[in-house]
Amino acid sequence: MADGNQGLGLQLRSLVKAGGELELSLAKAPIPKPAADEILVRIEATPINPSDLGLLIGAADLSTAKVAGSGDEAVVTAKIAPQFMRAMAARVDQSMPVGNEGAGVVVDAGADAQGLMGKTVAILGGAMYAQYRAVKAADALVVHDDATPKDAASCFVNPLTALGMVGTMRMEGHTALAHTAAASNLGQMLVKICLKDGVELVNIVRNPPQVALLRGIGAKHVVDTSAPSFMEDLIAALSATGATIAFDAIGGGKLAGQILTAMEVAAVQKGGGAFSRYGSTTYKQVYIYGGLDTGPTELNRAFGMQWGLGGFLLTYFIQKVGPAEAAKLRQRVADELKTTFASHYTAEIGLAEVLRPEKLIAINKKSTGEKYLITP
Amino acid sequence: MADGNQGLGLQLRSLVKAGGELELSLAKAPIPKPAADEILVRIEATPINPSDLGLLIGAADLSTAKVAGSGDEAVVTAKIAPQFMRAMAARVDQSMPVGNEGAGVVVDAGADAQGLMGKTVAILGGAMYAQYRAVKAADALVVHDDATPKDAASCFVNPLTALGMVGTMRMEGHTALAHTAAASNLGQMLVKICLKDGVELVNIVRNPPQVALLRGIGAKHVVDTSAPSFMEDLIAALSATGATIAFDAIGGGKLAGQILTAMEVAAVQKGGGAFSRYGSTTYKQVYIYGGLDTGPTELNRAFGMQWGLGGFLLTYFIQKVGPAEAAKLRQRVADELKTTFASHYTAEIGLAEVLRPEKLIAINKKSTGEKYLITP
Repeated sequence: MADGNQGLGLQLRSLVKAGGELELSLAKAPIPKPAADEILVRIEATPINPSDLGLLIGAADLSTAKVAGSGDEAVVTAKIAPQFMRAMAARVDQSMPVGNEGAGVVVDAGADAQGLMGKTVAILGGAMYAQYRAVKAADALVVHDDATPKDAASCFVNPLTALGMVGTMRMEGHTALAHTAAASNLGQMLVKICLKDGVELVNIVRNPPQVALLRGIGAKHVVDTSAPSFMEDLIAALSATGATIAFDAIGGGKLAGQILTAMEVAAVQKGGGAFSRYGSTTYKQVYIYGGLDTGPTELNRAFGMQWGLGGFLLTYFIQKVGPAEAAKLRQRVADELKTTFASHYTAEIGLAEVLRPEKLIAINKKSTGEKYLITP
Repeated sequence: MADGNQGLGLQLRSLVKAGGELELSLAKAPIPKPAADEILVRIEATPINPSDLGLLIGAADLSTAKVAGSGDEAVVTAKIAPQFMRAMAARVDQSMPVGNEGAGVVVDAGADAQGLMGKTVAILGGAMYAQYRAVKAADALVVHDDATPKDAASCFVNPLTALGMVGTMRMEGHTALAHTAAASNLGQMLVKICLKDGVELVNIVRNPPQVALLRGIGAKHVVDTSAPSFMEDLIAALSATGATIAFDAIGGGKLAGQILTAMEVAAVQKGGGAFSRYGSTTYKQVYIYGGLDTGPTELNRAFGMQWGLGGFLLTYFIQKVGPAEAAKLRQRVADELKTTFASHYTAEIGLAEVLRPEKLIAINKKSTGEKYLITP
């Protein structure tokens, strides 16, 4: 497809203006010519993950969204309240491409990467909400022949984050884990990973249908924050599993602290030992990896002195384990793409459809289990 | 002092009754006979640290305190609200001795510890609010000849915690640190340690007199939470020092989160780099080691993904560094007892004086820099 290199491809752009306005549009970007060690991928499927929404929409108030023009020429604008502009300082007035991951077909390749021509690959690295993307050949994950770009669209963020949770659990000396917003695509992958690997998992969800969903795929411990017995249920599940590490997608509110408190109660019950005003000697860790609730995190600190709360990001996990282990994890994703790591999407939309305010509002709701797939 | 072993010594006891009542009294306990490797210490000075108050008073409401009897026979009672009784479960109906550390003179010694007879020693390990305490000879810190028991009363908790902060800073790869409630006895020790060791320290205090106090002993960076420019001052001090770890004595409220936020702003300014919605790549850590504010900790999470918050307790630091390093730190305390590690006390009181409600209320206020010394 040599002529692709002379053409233009559509690329979704997000621009924050100094005056406090978000602008989304489709740019016509030159289709890159791959270097010797690169491939050019025609993106056919790229998911909108919660982790994409920060860059795409950020703190803009979508109830103020307006659209000018139509189709590929549409431009959406929305206001950003002044108090959120400080956090935007580093990106003001830069038109930024969006999209962490995607999949497609290799349509051009540098001299050292000819073997990948025509293959379906999954890629990671930003600027995926576009028709074409060039990447290092070594960074592409070649999927099995029976996998389509749609199957392969979400190969990295959710699968590797879920694997990273189990890996972190092991690295930091824990033997079981807990997870919130556990009915999400990522949560369902984690259930399947843990079943396969024989790791005990406490799933924390928000309502009875989510309990049913996870039980349906084999989850053993599911507790529901909407149940009056939530804290007792959580303590019982943490006791039964011995989970002393949790990964929290919610961030805001009291949940992270409740998990630490429940872990502490479980540890004290297990220890059965003498009173210490410093609490149990069991180390308890919660990592916040998402911000479904962007409000403040509130900790009552009723969990002794052996605890930690921190941020968890896939990038840092990959840096910690190193390239050899990362390659193993990626291969596992490719091998189990249609089982453990199967994703479910609410709807498929074209690039231009993202530029519709009502669609943006639906996408930005971040309902558990709801997920959109862009097919550029 | 062979006859001491046949007598009785006064020992302060704290008892939480299942009905929701705290009872403080002086028990007459048999004076222990030291084993071969033990010494018997006549306690002459023992401080009331914030860390003692949890066991001594806990969640009791001192405004309800009543006293029956007088002198050594006095018994103080105070109510504990039902919501706090759950945390007390492990100690209910056990009469508990109190007092983490103290100093005194060796008045009896086992066969293997005769060399310590008559020495002034500092000891750690609970039950110090008493006239006599037997401990392993190896655990006692023999102070220099010119040091009195009063000089040596606070050899462990504050000095080793302050040294533990600098040690933790180094172990975890940071090069400067911040400290809250920095005008405390411990804070002043930390200022002196950092001056001596050439470590940059950001002191966070609550009012202008505390700023003056710390400047008076040579502190370079002091920021005041009551100043309107607090956040700007904090960011500037963190930028100037490069401090990416902080130790927080307060716990409740927004301060821990403000420190993480200010560290993040300092890191982003320094990086000067491209926008990342995941924040800077600089790892930022706050350890909560006290609970001067027992209310919830509130985090706005405006500090990216590279952060940690956790508990810090001297015991776990000592376990991490091991006995050889711990011995070095203890020797440093003995060597610098009258300079770096000098403590200041608001008042000296006898054991029986603790059993006065008005005194208990004063002790429990935990005002920065206020500290009581018991002279049994």
